[in-house]
Amino acid sequence: MDKQTYVTIERKMLQCMNDGAHDKEHVYRVLYYVVDIAKDYAVDMDVLIASSLLHDIGRDAQFKDHNVDHALYGADMAYDYILTLGWGKDKAEQIKSCIRSHRYRRDCEPESIEAKILFDADKLDVCGVVGIARTLAYKGIVAEPLYTIDIHGGVNDGVDGIAPSFFQEYHYKLKNIYDHFYTDRARTIAEGRKASAQYIYENMLAEVQENYRIGKKALTELIDA
Amino acid sequence: MDKQTYVTIERKMLQCMNDGAHDKEHVYRVLYYVVDIAKDYAVDMDVLIASSLLHDIGRDAQFKDHNVDHALYGADMAYDYILTLGWGKDKAEQIKSCIRSHRYRRDCEPESIEAKILFDADKLDVCGVVGIARTLAYKGIVAEPLYTIDIHGGVNDGVDGIAPSFFQEYHYKLKNIYDHFYTDRARTIAEGRKASAQYIYENMLAEVQENYRIGKKALTELIDA
Repeated sequence: MDKQTYVTIERKMLQCMNDGAHDKEHVYRVLYYVVDIAKDYAVDMDVLIASSLLHDIGRDAQFKDHNVDHALYGADMAYDYILTLGWGKDKAEQIKSCIRSHRYRRDCEPESIEAKILFDADKLDVCGVVGIARTLAYKGIVAEPLYTIDIHGGVNDGVDGIAPSFFQEYHYKLKNIYDHFYTDRARTIAEGRKASAQYIYENMLAEVQENYRIGKKALTELIDA
Repeated sequence: MDKQTYVTIERKMLQCMNDGAHDKEHVYRVLYYVVDIAKDYAVDMDVLIASSLLHDIGRDAQFKDHNVDHALYGADMAYDYILTLGWGKDKAEQIKSCIRSHRYRRDCEPESIEAKILFDADKLDVCGVVGIARTLAYKGIVAEPLYTIDIHGGVNDGVDGIAPSFFQEYHYKLKNIYDHFYTDRARTIAEGRKASAQYIYENMLAEVQENYRIGKKALTELIDA
């Protein structure tokens, strides 16, 4: 890809990233993972770079309306946009296909090697400390708690959690991401980050459970029944 | 404190916590730290419990207008509220004084033992994994990034950071909190959590610096100058 084309598509991405800071950083990390992983494969780099830059341009629409799937919506947006650059329908279709399947869903699995690489790169950004940090920032944005309180007044560890919380998200999604990669390079990077995510969850749980256990007991003794 | 009074003040706190989930959890953790620390001292527990529950009721006003200091504003709110419960001016003054000085500032240091305990309890919630998690959630709310990019296109570690980011906040505030406690109990709890905060910062920095270093080099080779 020539630099002018890269800068043009990058500018389109920046225009679409409404929640500036967080989404933009994520896009660059995914792009950098993509080009790292792609070195091991024969791929269409134009398709991959464009797909990486544009993979989350449907986020804003999903944020405004939760019935919108940002992968499907963004894939259509990207298809239309790529045609305006004068690229052929074949390239536009490949990019659309990559973006459609980058989200973790059973009904739309990545098929091409480009789609698999984009999927893996996007999932890498849910691993390790960065994955935890992104989840915590998102919990702040949507005003969801770190943990919920069980019927005994203790801290729920999230294992059987239904109510949204960071601990629930850790068990539902974060800890399970490590077994779902298509490429060896991504699997290796992910494996090296599994322990740090687990460390954060376990230490946060220990901190708050101790705080509640000691504090609630002392408080109960201080407050007349 | 009798249970009815506790429930009444707790209800007032819950009404004032606009950003529901996060602030409410924080208030309970501070309260639990307070009653834990207070066991070692001769204190007025009514003053301490009321101060703990009400210490952040000025947060909403500060969020709406950054010129408002939530500690000063909340102290006045709490003073007026406590008088409506039929408590004397002496108690209301003590509570006001605790809340005024709970924020980390040089110009308003805690004087009474109750004020020092509230200060320590509030600072404990900036330590360890919970302190990191709260900061990350806040960065999400105010749309500030995890890190900024330096002039060479690499990840800024935040050491000399001026632009707001999580890394900048770690060096400016989070890593420095551990030396500023008045009570031994709080200092001991904090000391046990210092390593986990440092672990998170260092691992996140390593993850993103590696991602940028490898990815930017590969991307540069792919894009014609």
